[in-house]
Amino acid sequence: MSRKEGKLFVITGPSGTGKGSICKEILKEIGNEFSVSMTTREAREGEVHGKDYFFVTEEEFRDNIEKGNFLEHASVFEHLYGTPRDMVIKQLERGRNVILDIDVQGALQVKKAMPEAILIFLLPPSLHELRRRLEGRGTDSHDVIELRLSRAVSEIKLIGEYDYYVVNDDIDKALAEVRSIMTAEKCRVPNKVNPIIKQYEQEERGE
Amino acid sequence: MSRKEGKLFVITGPSGTGKGSICKEILKEIGNEFSVSMTTREAREGEVHGKDYFFVTEEEFRDNIEKGNFLEHASVFEHLYGTPRDMVIKQLERGRNVILDIDVQGALQVKKAMPEAILIFLLPPSLHELRRRLEGRGTDSHDVIELRLSRAVSEIKLIGEYDYYVVNDDIDKALAEVRSIMTAEKCRVPNKVNPIIKQYEQEERGE
Repeated sequence: MSRKEGKLFVITGPSGTGKGSICKEILKEIGNEFSVSMTTREAREGEVHGKDYFFVTEEEFRDNIEKGNFLEHASVFEHLYGTPRDMVIKQLERGRNVILDIDVQGALQVKKAMPEAILIFLLPPSLHELRRRLEGRGTDSHDVIELRLSRAVSEIKLIGEYDYYVVNDDIDKALAEVRSIMTAEKCRVPNKVNPIIKQYEQEERGE
Repeated sequence: MSRKEGKLFVITGPSGTGKGSICKEILKEIGNEFSVSMTTREAREGEVHGKDYFFVTEEEFRDNIEKGNFLEHASVFEHLYGTPRDMVIKQLERGRNVILDIDVQGALQVKKAMPEAILIFLLPPSLHELRRRLEGRGTDSHDVIELRLSRAVSEIKLIGEYDYYVVNDDIDKALAEVRSIMTAEKCRVPNKVNPIIKQYEQEERGE
């Protein structure tokens, strides 16, 4: 049975819900590279062009936007970041699943550019727990944490645009659910069923 | 996070693909009773009314058809069999998943009666293997086996009406895929997302 095309999964969720850890683990399991993003920020020490990021000038970046080369792009702290469409397409055509770890707005851009993308929304078990995790990081001031929590609620309001949601109260359970979603999507009956039917018909005719 | 309503899964596939074994195992795992069917055939020794089947007269059965009480019904060897709608609904309302093991046509009747039902099509790895399994049973004549194989191909042509397909080349792998489908469907973002959003909003307002 041929299930040739890979699928594009976008894992997203408010800051602090753990999408980074989940994506990293899943990517390790499926043995896939992260899709490499493009950015206008400068390379940090040790970062490699084409591996960590494609480092480009703002002019080059804007040229890529105009040509529709991004599945999504965003401005973060005055730098531009984007997901090149061709890299994703190439992997999918090779039959490999692609996992993107992007924010809530970016995920919706991807869905618009590729409606067949599968969006997974990672939820914190509660705001209380999300606050505890953000405080535990020790990197944000009280005000920034308040801002993140309030943004989390605005983002959660967009959950209706997503395909799946996973509550990350336990990382192993959350990982198991993400894996199940990926397996189930592999089992989804495709729009074009002829290749499936054909196989049995040919066998019936003795071909 | 409340995920209150159960979901209805219909597992189907051509005769000999092993849907009986798969359903039995899944039902054991989720600790759920089979939904009890209604039939006009006579009870065999040891069969209990209300447990194995609801044994009714043809008049009673036809009365139930007229009242729209069945999710699906069919005539098999001059006897009528049907799946009572109210039993299924009751389980779903209790938050329990329901698994129905029915034939390809019956599954499509269920989808018509309850569009939210999730249909899983079990495929044989090949017609050759299906023939081997049917012959291995030793219960069918050569002609009956030919009939079953030809019917299998007609049934597979309806796969486009289904939500998922699972190739049963290895029972453990097939079971794992069915379990994944059930888990993924639990994670599906529901049509009504307000209960999810409300929980976080209330927490934000300190309620």
